[in-house]
Amino acid sequence: MAFKHDIIEALKAIVGADYVVHKPEDLIVYEYDGSADKAMPAIVVVPETAEQVADVVKLARQNDVPIVARGAGTGLSGGAVAEKGGIVISLTRMTRILEVDVENRIAVVEPGVINLHLTEHVSQYGLCYAPDPSSQKACTIGGNVAENSGGPHCLAYGVTTNHVLGMEVVMADGSLQWVGGRTRETPGYDLRGIIIGSEGTLAIVTKVIVRLLRQPEAVKTLLAVFRELDQASAAVSGIIAAGIVPAAIEMMDDLCIQAVEPAVNAGYPANAGAVLLVEVEGLAESVEEEVEEIENVCNEFSPIEIRTATDADARERLWAGRKGVLGALGRLAPNYLLVDGTVPRTNLVEVLSQIRELSRRSGYPIANLLHAGDGNLHPSVLFDERKPGDTYNALTIGGEILKMCVDAGGVLSGEHGIGLEKQEHMPLMFNDDDMEAMARLKPAFDTRDMLNPAKIFPTGASCNEVAFAGAISRAGADAWI
Amino acid sequence: MAFKHDIIEALKAIVGADYVVHKPEDLIVYEYDGSADKAMPAIVVVPETAEQVADVVKLARQNDVPIVARGAGTGLSGGAVAEKGGIVISLTRMTRILEVDVENRIAVVEPGVINLHLTEHVSQYGLCYAPDPSSQKACTIGGNVAENSGGPHCLAYGVTTNHVLGMEVVMADGSLQWVGGRTRETPGYDLRGIIIGSEGTLAIVTKVIVRLLRQPEAVKTLLAVFRELDQASAAVSGIIAAGIVPAAIEMMDDLCIQAVEPAVNAGYPANAGAVLLVEVEGLAESVEEEVEEIENVCNEFSPIEIRTATDADARERLWAGRKGVLGALGRLAPNYLLVDGTVPRTNLVEVLSQIRELSRRSGYPIANLLHAGDGNLHPSVLFDERKPGDTYNALTIGGEILKMCVDAGGVLSGEHGIGLEKQEHMPLMFNDDDMEAMARLKPAFDTRDMLNPAKIFPTGASCNEVAFAGAISRAGADAWI
Repeated sequence: MAFKHDIIEALKAIVGADYVVHKPEDLIVYEYDGSADKAMPAIVVVPETAEQVADVVKLARQNDVPIVARGAGTGLSGGAVAEKGGIVISLTRMTRILEVDVENRIAVVEPGVINLHLTEHVSQYGLCYAPDPSSQKACTIGGNVAENSGGPHCLAYGVTTNHVLGMEVVMADGSLQWVGGRTRETPGYDLRGIIIGSEGTLAIVTKVIVRLLRQPEAVKTLLAVFRELDQASAAVSGIIAAGIVPAAIEMMDDLCIQAVEPAVNAGYPANAGAVLLVEVEGLAESVEEEVEEIENVCNEFSPIEIRTATDADARERLWAGRKGVLGALGRLAPNYLLVDGTVPRTNLVEVLSQIRELSRRSGYPIANLLHAGDGNLHPSVLFDERKPGDTYNALTIGGEILKMCVDAGGVLSGEHGIGLEKQEHMPLMFNDDDMEAMARLKPAFDTRDMLNPAKIFPTGASCNEVAFAGAISRAGADAWI
Repeated sequence: MAFKHDIIEALKAIVGADYVVHKPEDLIVYEYDGSADKAMPAIVVVPETAEQVADVVKLARQNDVPIVARGAGTGLSGGAVAEKGGIVISLTRMTRILEVDVENRIAVVEPGVINLHLTEHVSQYGLCYAPDPSSQKACTIGGNVAENSGGPHCLAYGVTTNHVLGMEVVMADGSLQWVGGRTRETPGYDLRGIIIGSEGTLAIVTKVIVRLLRQPEAVKTLLAVFRELDQASAAVSGIIAAGIVPAAIEMMDDLCIQAVEPAVNAGYPANAGAVLLVEVEGLAESVEEEVEEIENVCNEFSPIEIRTATDADARERLWAGRKGVLGALGRLAPNYLLVDGTVPRTNLVEVLSQIRELSRRSGYPIANLLHAGDGNLHPSVLFDERKPGDTYNALTIGGEILKMCVDAGGVLSGEHGIGLEKQEHMPLMFNDDDMEAMARLKPAFDTRDMLNPAKIFPTGASCNEVAFAGAISRAGADAWI
């Protein structure tokens, strides 16, 4: 292996001196993402082109240095944390929208394009990009691909993999390759699909061909406030049973409401135990009809109040409470651990009541935020990292919640990936054969385990300690989901 | 390796003597599928349970015998043909619908369940299974998974991979394993996605967890007859541009019309050059509104006539011509080679005119059937296998059409897979790096290349000859798309 100094010089020759970060004081911002994990990379490079990314990978390979690709760092599972040090490739300079093919409803973008920028750019053609993580003002399309990100509107439209047709990727040997294409079907093995959600462990994405959808003719948002969480859950079941598939069904519990109301003045009543937010899109007539039907369902469960809005500003005000929750949780506790699990919709009430019981038993408050239509839960365990044992306890509670989800027929992750945070929990869902089948795929792409090593797969008890040692949760204000 | 006789006895011990086929006269029906390829397996077994499938795979592995899983044999690319002989595992006895979870809209089925039976079974709950290959009265869910099948209604709902949540599979070592789950997101690598469409080369599916959709409140079908194919193509572009996403947009050309009209008496006018069939689903109001808009678009291109239908019987009559086409092509020629390619929608007119020119130049009639909304073409080259050189010429023309599709930014396959028929054409789309990346996946699942060997990947010039030698196309009556 060459000296670090030589590698730095070689990297400068590839991307330019201004785009190689190696001083400890500069590296510190690349130490963490939105999760509870931290690790310091040796070097960060910020390439501008796919060819530069390929050259960096080749150089790293020659010198046996691990590589971690990184978008905006908003991920919640440690996927962008350089657990083994090495070189972080930040893709935030590759922000070009290379092509918008309006007739075929396709865009070709670089991985550093911010999710919301893409939708804003194509709105001039009446189009939009459907996946909308709550972090969409900051997170990148490349990061969305790595984590197969969802978002409130994935209930109707599906997650990232349903909207990515093809990609240019840099493989572990530094070669540039296209997977997938410009149409929905591609012959041969679905390499596109296996790379999406692989958290940068199989390849690094340098161009993404995405499907665009027509903006809906009409959008209407309904906010219903209930006394009890169970009433809101029952309303969700009722809406789904009525055969309506809203664009989004979001839910939050009393703790979320207590946190966010003083922060954004959403006007939630003092006795509110749960807020349900439902958005319907489509032709104007059907939107009106469906919202009326949703209102009827909600009315069966004694709501404190129901509000609806059609124009963009009024709808944004209804969403303000939901979107401000994570930032506001800091008012209740210095730290939170956001858990991401999914259960079959019909088991939501049961799992929520188990979480409440766990909170009572452990003494740690747990605020529940849900993409309820999908059965995707985001319980946030509130704690204070300055109290000895608190971080450990929060992580233990997080693990118990994930176990509850799996026991209820659900999965470990809804939309934030496995990364570091959940790798020790993978055996809850996967037996040795399952894990082996996945593990065999990694060397098919990356023989030397250079791309984002030590992610996804459990690495044994010793790493468990490392994970805990490094688990310093950040305050809410920086986090996005 | 044991003697064939010993293997037969061992297989009888696993599945029962009645379910092991080994006499040449009995094996002959397993020699072909819907493609132009033929090969005789040594033995066919028809297991009843996943455990029996696993035991057969273990036995085959111990004796180094290749295995080909087979559904109804309706595939059009040779995926179920036992190119290397060996054991064919027919899954047609595994026909149980194991579970219908109405609230979570999930069904768990065995691979031998016939596609249409599933939709018929769940219709009592107001639900349906979306992917609907034209062979849906015969093809199986397991076969659909192997080929990632599409169908007319995939325009709105996507192909098989968008509707399969999880699967129980038998791996190449004979172990039983679950991939995916009961919800849309699963953590870790998407093994589910890579197995779907892998044509039985990576694993054998023994249970499938599928998403079910609500039956639409209303369905309306519109049939428009045009003088020219270009008018119909322009109408398709107009419909898409208007922001409408119908459940299906099907198109057929004058040759198809000439073939099918005497067969099904669809009532197409004598001067019809193209028929467009559009189906819209949804809430009653929006369906009416959208069909009206589609009618307006069609009227811009001087249609000879437009018919619409709402009730099931009348809609079925409008579909009769489209559904009878392949069977009727036998009236025009003893054989046809059905090509399956996809191009960006905007290039449809251009590629269709190239195909017409190719037909004129070669002297072979080519009948065009299209899932037009998806840009998925099914040109059928008409020929007579009894004429020396005709089969070879038809295959050459098929290859040229695929090249046209790829050159127009499209792909080799829309919905029927690669199998044997197209493997020599893979280099049209994929360079050596691409093919190598795919090829590396195969041993990650199947170290000894036992599962459906000699499929998907080109096997060099010698195999080209084999493919041509075996290319005896069957008459249209048996084929389904």
